[in-house]
Amino acid sequence: MPGNRDQLRVAMIGYGFMGAAHSHAWQAVRRAFDLSAVPALSVLCGRDRAQVEAAASRYGFAETSTDWRDVVTRDDIDVVDVCTPGDTHMAVAVAALEADKHVLCEKPLANSVPEAEAMAKAAEAAQWRGRRSMVGFNYRRVPAVVLAHQLVAEGRLGDLRHVRGAYLQDWLVDPAVPLAWRMRRESAGSGALGDIGAHVIDLAQYLTGERLSGLSARARTFISERPLPSGPDVFLGGQGGTTLGEVTVDDAVVMHGEIGPALATFEATRMATGRKNALRIELNGSKGSLSFDFEAMNELWFLDGDEDRRINGFRRVLATEPVHPYIPAWWPPGHGLGYDHTFTNEIADFVQAIIEGTDPEPSFADGLQVQRVLAAVEQSAADNAGWTVVGTG
Amino acid sequence: MPGNRDQLRVAMIGYGFMGAAHSHAWQAVRRAFDLSAVPALSVLCGRDRAQVEAAASRYGFAETSTDWRDVVTRDDIDVVDVCTPGDTHMAVAVAALEADKHVLCEKPLANSVPEAEAMAKAAEAAQWRGRRSMVGFNYRRVPAVVLAHQLVAEGRLGDLRHVRGAYLQDWLVDPAVPLAWRMRRESAGSGALGDIGAHVIDLAQYLTGERLSGLSARARTFISERPLPSGPDVFLGGQGGTTLGEVTVDDAVVMHGEIGPALATFEATRMATGRKNALRIELNGSKGSLSFDFEAMNELWFLDGDEDRRINGFRRVLATEPVHPYIPAWWPPGHGLGYDHTFTNEIADFVQAIIEGTDPEPSFADGLQVQRVLAAVEQSAADNAGWTVVGTG
Amino acid sequence: MPGNRDQLRVAMIGYGFMGAAHSHAWQAVRRAFDLSAVPALSVLCGRDRAQVEAAASRYGFAETSTDWRDVVTRDDIDVVDVCTPGDTHMAVAVAALEADKHVLCEKPLANSVPEAEAMAKAAEAAQWRGRRSMVGFNYRRVPAVVLAHQLVAEGRLGDLRHVRGAYLQDWLVDPAVPLAWRMRRESAGSGALGDIGAHVIDLAQYLTGERLSGLSARARTFISERPLPSGPDVFLGGQGGTTLGEVTVDDAVVMHGEIGPALATFEATRMATGRKNALRIELNGSKGSLSFDFEAMNELWFLDGDEDRRINGFRRVLATEPVHPYIPAWWPPGHGLGYDHTFTNEIADFVQAIIEGTDPEPSFADGLQVQRVLAAVEQSAADNAGWTVVGTG
Amino acid sequence: MPGNRDQLRVAMIGYGFMGAAHSHAWQAVRRAFDLSAVPALSVLCGRDRAQVEAAASRYGFAETSTDWRDVVTRDDIDVVDVCTPGDTHMAVAVAALEADKHVLCEKPLANSVPEAEAMAKAAEAAQWRGRRSMVGFNYRRVPAVVLAHQLVAEGRLGDLRHVRGAYLQDWLVDPAVPLAWRMRRESAGSGALGDIGAHVIDLAQYLTGERLSGLSARARTFISERPLPSGPDVFLGGQGGTTLGEVTVDDAVVMHGEIGPALATFEATRMATGRKNALRIELNGSKGSLSFDFEAMNELWFLDGDEDRRINGFRRVLATEPVHPYIPAWWPPGHGLGYDHTFTNEIADFVQAIIEGTDPEPSFADGLQVQRVLAAVEQSAADNAGWTVVGTG
Repeated sequence: MPGNRDQLRVAMIGYGFMGAAHSHAWQAVRRAFDLSAVPALSVLCGRDRAQVEAAASRYGFAETSTDWRDVVTRDDIDVVDVCTPGDTHMAVAVAALEADKHVLCEKPLANSVPEAEAMAKAAEAAQWRGRRSMVGFNYRRVPAVVLAHQLVAEGRLGDLRHVRGAYLQDWLVDPAVPLAWRMRRESAGSGALGDIGAHVIDLAQYLTGERLSGLSARARTFISERPLPSGPDVFLGGQGGTTLGEVTVDDAVVMHGEIGPALATFEATRMATGRKNALRIELNGSKGSLSFDFEAMNELWFLDGDEDRRINGFRRVLATEPVHPYIPAWWPPGHGLGYDHTFTNEIADFVQAIIEGTDPEPSFADGLQVQRVLAAVEQSAADNAGWTVVGTG
Repeated sequence: MPGNRDQLRVAMIGYGFMGAAHSHAWQAVRRAFDLSAVPALSVLCGRDRAQVEAAASRYGFAETSTDWRDVVTRDDIDVVDVCTPGDTHMAVAVAALEADKHVLCEKPLANSVPEAEAMAKAAEAAQWRGRRSMVGFNYRRVPAVVLAHQLVAEGRLGDLRHVRGAYLQDWLVDPAVPLAWRMRRESAGSGALGDIGAHVIDLAQYLTGERLSGLSARARTFISERPLPSGPDVFLGGQGGTTLGEVTVDDAVVMHGEIGPALATFEATRMATGRKNALRIELNGSKGSLSFDFEAMNELWFLDGDEDRRINGFRRVLATEPVHPYIPAWWPPGHGLGYDHTFTNEIADFVQAIIEGTDPEPSFADGLQVQRVLAAVEQSAADNAGWTVVGTG
Repeated sequence: MPGNRDQLRVAMIGYGFMGAAHSHAWQAVRRAFDLSAVPALSVLCGRDRAQVEAAASRYGFAETSTDWRDVVTRDDIDVVDVCTPGDTHMAVAVAALEADKHVLCEKPLANSVPEAEAMAKAAEAAQWRGRRSMVGFNYRRVPAVVLAHQLVAEGRLGDLRHVRGAYLQDWLVDPAVPLAWRMRRESAGSGALGDIGAHVIDLAQYLTGERLSGLSARARTFISERPLPSGPDVFLGGQGGTTLGEVTVDDAVVMHGEIGPALATFEATRMATGRKNALRIELNGSKGSLSFDFEAMNELWFLDGDEDRRINGFRRVLATEPVHPYIPAWWPPGHGLGYDHTFTNEIADFVQAIIEGTDPEPSFADGLQVQRVLAAVEQSAADNAGWTVVGTG
Repeated sequence: MPGNRDQLRVAMIGYGFMGAAHSHAWQAVRRAFDLSAVPALSVLCGRDRAQVEAAASRYGFAETSTDWRDVVTRDDIDVVDVCTPGDTHMAVAVAALEADKHVLCEKPLANSVPEAEAMAKAAEAAQWRGRRSMVGFNYRRVPAVVLAHQLVAEGRLGDLRHVRGAYLQDWLVDPAVPLAWRMRRESAGSGALGDIGAHVIDLAQYLTGERLSGLSARARTFISERPLPSGPDVFLGGQGGTTLGEVTVDDAVVMHGEIGPALATFEATRMATGRKNALRIELNGSKGSLSFDFEAMNELWFLDGDEDRRINGFRRVLATEPVHPYIPAWWPPGHGLGYDHTFTNEIADFVQAIIEGTDPEPSFADGLQVQRVLAAVEQSAADNAGWTVVGTG
């Protein structure tokens, strides 16, 4: 192959849905972005040898392994990409950081605050040795979202008054959906809260530059028993058997809270019939407003309150112009991006940070802070919605 | 004038924004609907003689008065329509009911639970004497909203899981808006909560057939001082002077709660820059979902979860067909209705109930129940968002 | 009744759908607008005595008549409002103008160019005697449409490049809809073309300030036979019998043409399944664009091409603010208008023109010009879509 | 690399925008789809050695060449992918087919009907020798579009009445955009017509299963002179110098026509300010309707006219479910696709056809037929919009 760019040798731990998405991104990034170091898919690691080999062939990895402890300490690996369920994040990420690898870890950072604290500590230590770490809140890499972040940072919204966040799916409405690992507390930590609620909380904090300081929350498990899986324990598309098991995480949470000077409402649910992936956020400030829904991910709705009232209204900005974040790497105006581009953009930023020796965001410390919000939500929900201050460590 | 339908002689107390809207409706109803008794605009009553006379001329009332106590006891009056600020609702409505008038009262029913209790009691007593009373939650008369109510009642949504209500306006974003009666506790009772929050709460309960049982809430006054009015004390469009006064009601409230089996979030705010009159509600059930926004009041979005997944999606139902509620009285398909039609439809229902000797809804008892929710919101907000059970009397 | 404003005594000829809409407007206008002369509904005229009396009672007319020739010459009538089918427009309007009445005539102005020419001539003559005439293209009175007109006139669109007009309904998709007067050439002149195509053509010319100079068109009658009416010959909602009759007008027309410097496409159809009243128009200019759809009549979508590309997009302007046309007469922000408000606004303008002694628009000359466009469409369609220059008289 | 799937060795001629898009797709296809033969990016070919080498490094090609005649006859090449401007399509594609390669050719197939005829003839001959050819109308590979095609084919729309197609961009509104090859007749054949009009015409014919039989058209070049490029001759993003050159193709075309039993309107323009990539099509039939806009490419709007009128409306179907075309290869519900997925899906179909020995669509014969429509458009436009029958060869 022609060309002489440096290589970044990547080991990926886990090969499920996130593994597929990340693999696509690790390869696409070298075509889309102009990077001085290009990723090479070196090792794919998973527990089941046959499955990991099939995945490696499909995804384009050079080697496979079934022993992550071995992989993360190999000298010929520069980056470890953690795509496993949450209960193993801490062990893998900390080991990789201690072995002086750069680490990209899927969200939520961990299943508990103590785990996340250990990870943030390891990341901080590794940072002194020049190792970069990032948590995969990929929705921060939607061009329309970055544009929103810029507009807030530039003061276009004025004083923030309202944050209205929701992450609505209908994936668990059907009671026949089997009880996968994501519905068990021991593997997933929490339910809709940790999987999708974490995204909307991170997004709200990223967009506003503020942190949720306190909240009142309520959680619910609408379907308390589900068929145990009769085949592979996959989140979506699995088959259920005849035996039922108890769902030990939430199907939905609702909350209100304070985020900087603003009042906020949040909701995360897998029981919103007809909503497929509606990660929505609206911000209202004294001078303007913004609205976003991932189901139409290339659109940002912006209202400039300073403008002539006669022609004022929410504008549908198609964030697909060369002036928009990430777009120069992609296609002409109006030729929208899809879900996988969030990962490609994320990995481009991660690689660029490694190249430049800067610390990418969101950091493990950011991931820890989200974990603290999740813990506060669970505490308030357990305390009859009592007002709960988010811990600051 | 040809024709020989019976007359219903109407006295209206108050002639502001609501007086204009009701007057329009009292006249339009006789053309749009086929009623065996037709309203006659007999007396308009207000404090300022010159203003009430000008209004009567404009609205088409035969007489004027500045003494409501006299008007509500006149023998030649059948109906009293209460369009004054909330602090006088109880006195006027109770007097009118005791004088054996039918009473239509604007919302919220009162400024406090005790007042509302007195009114509900008077209405119940009058009901035994054949007198009808109704509280003016006019958004129940939007055809799309009634259609939504029907679909829920028919079981098209299955088990209810989520209610997502918001009433968003931006009318008070500008700090130069003067401190009108709606921003003073003594005249208005509460702020966004009572004026627009009451609507979204009533709508949620009407649509679901369930009652809010408990909630956690937070309130905020973002702009605590405003110019005192330099002219007439009108809610919108007034002029402010140089002296500032204290805003003693909320600009915004957020809450979550339980409504029947569902988790709910609610928000009422006058600080949502760019949102003009976004009374929004979405319901998610095990079998379907509904979504409505008054800014597009002729549309109901319905998702039928039982339908073929391949062609499933929220449908934009234009509730302007002859099969839709109230539409036979109005225009051909696609020729939408506006805000004032909600009042005309409401008054048609009220008149029809008087003719038929049935009790119209929402009753004063319904208005009292909403008042109890408002009281619970204020209590929770005062109690650091503590979970608060809604009283049941 | 208190008040001492002058009266304008109105005779209405015809009492069908348009009669109902106009009656509503003649009454509503006095409450909504501050006019120094107020309309009085004096005489309603129609062929069937029983029906016209019932309508008069419902609409609020003082008298009835079955002889329009008598009515239009009565001394106690100031205004004649022509709401009959197109085949009688000329006779009634010319007689009324010659009798020195102000005349409001429904659209299209006539069923043929010669008829329209006679009417325009009569209107011009009457104008010298201080009599006003106007043709009822009511969609010019939608606030969002007037706002669009203003923006074009102010040069906000720059050089006009494209006009994209369509009027889509689905009212005749069902072959069981009976063959009403609107589907017969002798009574209606043409089909979708004259009834709804006339509206979109008028709107395009009004908005752009330009005239269609030439065009190529194609017409089609998809359902060539329909049941003859078994009851009243009403356009919508009638019953059909077992005998079929021939539809002698178009169900749909398509065309492209030149309007000033712009390329245009137009379509008018009653066979667009699912489209209820989609009167749509989009304008693209060198500096901006506008888009409107009557199914969401309170919204104007505006794009300002001069604005920062990063936050550029079509804005959903809710034309319900006090700064918008007609809105000061109506409701607060976001409290949208409906179909009937177009007539009330239209009649307010007509009355104001009579009061001020100015000539209202659209004039009969404007109506004649639209008639010439309709004739050109029919000629091109008959000539295998050949390019046809629109006559200028 | 693990895995033992067969290889398909690909040579790509051209490395501009389409080269980037196709390269991405040739690589992504092996991860996303389960194919028994996997593409290998063997040779990238272009005129400028330095540029083609840089592109090859970026896109992941193993070799480069500057001589397409050599490349298309190499024994170690299985597939030739033609991504050059239209004036070279015929030469490259015919040579490749004659050398027994499978050929994927970008659209429009050629710059003239005779060229397209030669290509279709060569493709037909190659077909007998087992060689596959396809023209790259990639929008046929949008899941929502394929779903629309299926619904029409299943008869869900009934008898087709209307086709409303438009492809709206604003890429040439700015007169400073330099005169690139796409604006010169000798290199591009035509302007908006061939580049984007070809897409909407192909889409209309694909969706309906009908062919445009006749039409009337008008074309316009709004900006007749533009700066000649001062740097590389690229369509978008190039720099213009001070010398002006003549634009020899259309900026916009409008037309109406007949497509099977339906009346159609079409428009293709690069002067629609604010429209970025609005490839729109709406179909109305006797039983239902469909609407699509590529700016929201994951949505299909479907109306089922047979359904209960009370809850009837256009449904926003998110074509991102496992039941939708191509989606099993991609992401979970609601995680939309972007522009590049159309190429990946297209190439998956092409590879699958090669593997299975079937003929993929759209064929070169389909491309030729579109070319004949384009020729008819130009003929009609040159003939003052005269009705023009589309040739059938």
